[in-house]
Amino acid sequence: MLSEFLSAIETELQKQVARLDEPRAKNFHEMLTYHMGWTGEGAGPEATGKRIRPLIVLLTTASCGANWQFALPAAAAVELVHNFSLVHDDIEDNGEKRRGRTTVWKKWGLAQGVNAGDGLFVLSNLALTDLEADYPAPIVLRAAKILHATCLDLTRGQFLDISYEARTDLGVADYWPMVSGKTAALIAACCQLGALLGGADETRQEAYRAFGHYLGLAFQVQDDILGIWGDEALTGKSAASDLVDGKKSLPVLFGLEKNGEFAKRWRQGPIHAEEVRALAALLETESARTSAQDAARQMTDLALENLRVANPQGEAGESLKQLADKLLQRGA
Amino acid sequence: MLSEFLSAIETELQKQVARLDEPRAKNFHEMLTYHMGWTGEGAGPEATGKRIRPLIVLLTTASCGANWQFALPAAAAVELVHNFSLVHDDIEDNGEKRRGRTTVWKKWGLAQGVNAGDGLFVLSNLALTDLEADYPAPIVLRAAKILHATCLDLTRGQFLDISYEARTDLGVADYWPMVSGKTAALIAACCQLGALLGGADETRQEAYRAFGHYLGLAFQVQDDILGIWGDEALTGKSAASDLVDGKKSLPVLFGLEKNGEFAKRWRQGPIHAEEVRALAALLETESARTSAQDAARQMTDLALENLRVANPQGEAGESLKQLADKLLQRGA
Repeated sequence: MLSEFLSAIETELQKQVARLDEPRAKNFHEMLTYHMGWTGEGAGPEATGKRIRPLIVLLTTASCGANWQFALPAAAAVELVHNFSLVHDDIEDNGEKRRGRTTVWKKWGLAQGVNAGDGLFVLSNLALTDLEADYPAPIVLRAAKILHATCLDLTRGQFLDISYEARTDLGVADYWPMVSGKTAALIAACCQLGALLGGADETRQEAYRAFGHYLGLAFQVQDDILGIWGDEALTGKSAASDLVDGKKSLPVLFGLEKNGEFAKRWRQGPIHAEEVRALAALLETESARTSAQDAARQMTDLALENLRVANPQGEAGESLKQLADKLLQRGA
Repeated sequence: MLSEFLSAIETELQKQVARLDEPRAKNFHEMLTYHMGWTGEGAGPEATGKRIRPLIVLLTTASCGANWQFALPAAAAVELVHNFSLVHDDIEDNGEKRRGRTTVWKKWGLAQGVNAGDGLFVLSNLALTDLEADYPAPIVLRAAKILHATCLDLTRGQFLDISYEARTDLGVADYWPMVSGKTAALIAACCQLGALLGGADETRQEAYRAFGHYLGLAFQVQDDILGIWGDEALTGKSAASDLVDGKKSLPVLFGLEKNGEFAKRWRQGPIHAEEVRALAALLETESARTSAQDAARQMTDLALENLRVANPQGEAGESLKQLADKLLQRGA
């Protein structure tokens, strides 16, 4: 089932991006197919990413008992939004590598990089309007409003993330609005769109949306824990630890609120690779790790509770639960 | 009439941008209100720009005999698209001033600048969905598709513009696809949206669209002529001449095709402020000015011919014709 979905997603994405496949825009199209992982050096499954977001859309639609193929334009739209945000994030974070490959702006320059991200954003809007083929206009419009509201959340989350870089007065309360926008909003939208297109009633749509929201939050917290105590963070190169990056992740914010030895060191300036193990241990002593794990568990419980209310059906329902388990347990 | 329209446009724009007016996103909202010309140093009518695009939407709707107030969300949407593209263009061109004020990216940094542009783009999408209050869903969806297709044209035109910078093999044939995307597409969309929302039939919608398209092209060619032979270009500071900028404007492309003395000098490298008068005269001798004027006249004729077919009515129809005359004759 999943491989059939993934193959259909890739075909739909290629169809959507092909709107720019014309002689005069050849290099524009190439930038996008490169970023999507289809062409250029290092192209292939490693380069495309896991397509988790479109998969969630289709599994949700199918778990409502509807034809998942009708939802393909929405699946493509969310993945294009995700990739638009990656292209612009790489510019905003000065990132030179993405999934092991040179980033678009680094390869084609800043100007083309900004514009390539804009192009992916436009294509996501256009993809969504293709729902018209199988849904009445009011449903398509409802889907568009969900997508646009989500994109506003994304840009708001990104604004917070950038503005946090220079701030030293942040606490745990500042964390949730930022990750709600940056990570949870789009996953919530995947579930909400899938349920809308699956014909679920308002109550089930809201349960699916809330499931996605908490799934996104739990996933992000797990990711934050791995960014400090994961194997790669502790044993890998310096860039593998969020501590060296100075990322305001949840464990760091718990540590800062504790205002102990970790906070003291953090406020003295950038952390070096040699300190990573000792500081991770210090942060653990100051209970930032267990606090973050508690938060992850709370978000996971809320996700699963909402999934029970949503009551996904059939093989797709099982797959959706398994996908959630896989995402939620990766850090456990 | 125009002042009533302009005041309603400003109110609608402020309402749309206020979607980000919340305590946590305060500075995000401020970046957008600054760019829109409402707040910060130099705020005021000079800073907002002329709002020509939303004015065209409303005049078109009214000239079809419909209530122009219903079209306000579309008017706001096109102006937000225009401003999104300005914010990103300033980044892509490394522009530090816009309408005499410091650009957003220069004031708040590259990362926030890219994200502020994205925010304006999202707000344009959301604005358009507000048409739902007064139009049935299929019309709103049709309007959304027009806007999205236009944005794809914009990014395609921007791609061409950036890629032309490094090219030395360009001719007049390369000019039209670039300015069709960068300038004409959005003005065409203003007319098309206005006609759609004014209840015009398909034939009249197409005539309005074509009017906007040729109006945009004629306007751009006039602007190109002024960029070389306008008072400011000849007597102002070096930055006032497109020749110093190395801009591939229509007269320059005519000159390059001629392959005479101007082309020879152009290919030798950047043009200095002291050479501007002599090179403008040279370009005129090589008939680039008359060729560009001929092109502007052709585009103007096509615009006016289509406007006759569109057959705008009443006071709004008169205002639309006057606005077109004003835009078309500015370089004559």
